[in-house]
Amino acid sequence: MTSFVFRRQLTIAWGDCDPAGIVFNPRFFEMFDANSWMLFEAALDVKARDLASTYGIVGIALVDARANFLKPTKFGDKIEIASCVSEFRKSSFDIEHKLSVAGELAVEGRETRVWAVRDTADPHRIATALVPQDVIAKFS
Amino acid sequence: MTSFVFRRQLTIAWGDCDPAGIVFNPRFFEMFDANSWMLFEAALDVKARDLASTYGIVGIALVDARANFLKPTKFGDKIEIASCVSEFRKSSFDIEHKLSVAGELAVEGRETRVWAVRDTADPHRIATALVPQDVIAKFS
Amino acid sequence: MTSFVFRRQLTIAWGDCDPAGIVFNPRFFEMFDANSWMLFEAALDVKARDLASTYGIVGIALVDARANFLKPTKFGDKIEIASCVSEFRKSSFDIEHKLSVAGELAVEGRETRVWAVRDTADPHRIATALVPQDVIAKFS
Amino acid sequence: MTSFVFRRQLTIAWGDCDPAGIVFNPRFFEMFDANSWMLFEAALDVKARDLASTYGIVGIALVDARANFLKPTKFGDKIEIASCVSEFRKSSFDIEHKLSVAGELAVEGRETRVWAVRDTADPHRIATALVPQDVIAKFS
Repeated sequence: MTSFVFRRQLTIAWGDCDPAGIVFNPRFFEMFDANSWMLFEAALDVKARDLASTYGIVGIALVDARANFLKPTKFGDKIEIASCVSEFRKSSFDIEHKLSVAGELAVEGRETRVWAVRDTADPHRIATALVPQDVIAKFS
Repeated sequence: MTSFVFRRQLTIAWGDCDPAGIVFNPRFFEMFDANSWMLFEAALDVKARDLASTYGIVGIALVDARANFLKPTKFGDKIEIASCVSEFRKSSFDIEHKLSVAGELAVEGRETRVWAVRDTADPHRIATALVPQDVIAKFS
Repeated sequence: MTSFVFRRQLTIAWGDCDPAGIVFNPRFFEMFDANSWMLFEAALDVKARDLASTYGIVGIALVDARANFLKPTKFGDKIEIASCVSEFRKSSFDIEHKLSVAGELAVEGRETRVWAVRDTADPHRIATALVPQDVIAKFS
Repeated sequence: MTSFVFRRQLTIAWGDCDPAGIVFNPRFFEMFDANSWMLFEAALDVKARDLASTYGIVGIALVDARANFLKPTKFGDKIEIASCVSEFRKSSFDIEHKLSVAGELAVEGRETRVWAVRDTADPHRIATALVPQDVIAKFS
């Protein structure tokens, strides 16, 4: 578990919610994706849109996403999403997202992403590469 | 044109953009809808989710929405959306949204909404009602 | 008004709807955008993703979008969206979308798009070009 | 693993895709949610919007969602999503979604949902109830 945590506060919008009056689940995955970009931006001090060119990568490609829903989140709720890299492996890593409402955990999310580069043999494909040590260092 | 203006700053997310790298147009309508709620919340000093119960209405129902796109808006762009009621009529009103990037107008939006109540003859239908004068007064 | 009409039937999903139980307006703009691609695909007999390369364009860029909402559309409603080019001008054109529920018009949409090419002076910018006559011919 | 499988074919839209030209991950969760509704509608022969009233439930509430992404899915891809209940437990069940492109598995999704009713002690809360045997029977 790395120590760098990115926190974002936002308010649940009308359009985030379904006929049951609670957040439609794909919206949480949107929020988590945005938080992942912001986490890397903050930790590496590189604008999200310059991440690929700065590190010679295609991106931080998602291979697995999951969330579990502990409490309903509703229109107008003020939420906080705290995100961090929970584990770096050779070329992949996990990002953990904790979404809370009034200090109580409401949704837990986890993404697994890879450090993705263009495949040298076939530029139409992507391959994974080792996450640079200086990148990892910036998260602690 | 009323004088109360609500301004919100946000950053364009990866997931707001399409394969051309620019914001997918429905996302602007999401942003405008959210701004309309926030505009009323700020002007009336009532939480958006309490708007209906406070005023005995069903909501501020949308009858017309439009936008014109002057300049492309891209991933990572810092934008500002300034919203105001441009005209109150008897039971309807127009909301104008000006979205700018680095101070330059990029998208103009306009919504027409009605002050919507439950139809007394048929509670499954909605009807329009006069916008209260004290509501209108709070926008100037 | 050109005579080629593209029609699509679909069913309103749970996630298309807001806490009032009706379709959240940006969803209609998503449906219209998808229909515009399908209309061109059908009229020109070119796969949507090959449209740009086939005609040497960047795309059919949106400059204006609007919709007016006549009747509420709800979860589970079977709808039809009929789309056609209502007018071709030199380098721009209008697409009309008529969304109906059980044969009754519920939403009218209109998009203005341009035949967009890369600017020869500055390849980072886009410019408009004349819509080819053989393209226009295929819509009648 | 129950034997009733619901299959849906669709085409990836422009607006489903991100600047990398591939489907933005929350869109898959939207597709899975829609398929879950359609699966229940088909298996139980009840319109999705009548599911709650027919069975005296609030809904089939999501408690966990996950997906893993095996191959990129792009604009214009013709996909099939095959969905089934992989396991019924007392008051919860798992739905498996297999999304394939040209017959090759591209995304695997899994949702855990509960048979949700209104809490008798506090009608503002939801509780879980036993999935009726006749519901389970219709999936085999």
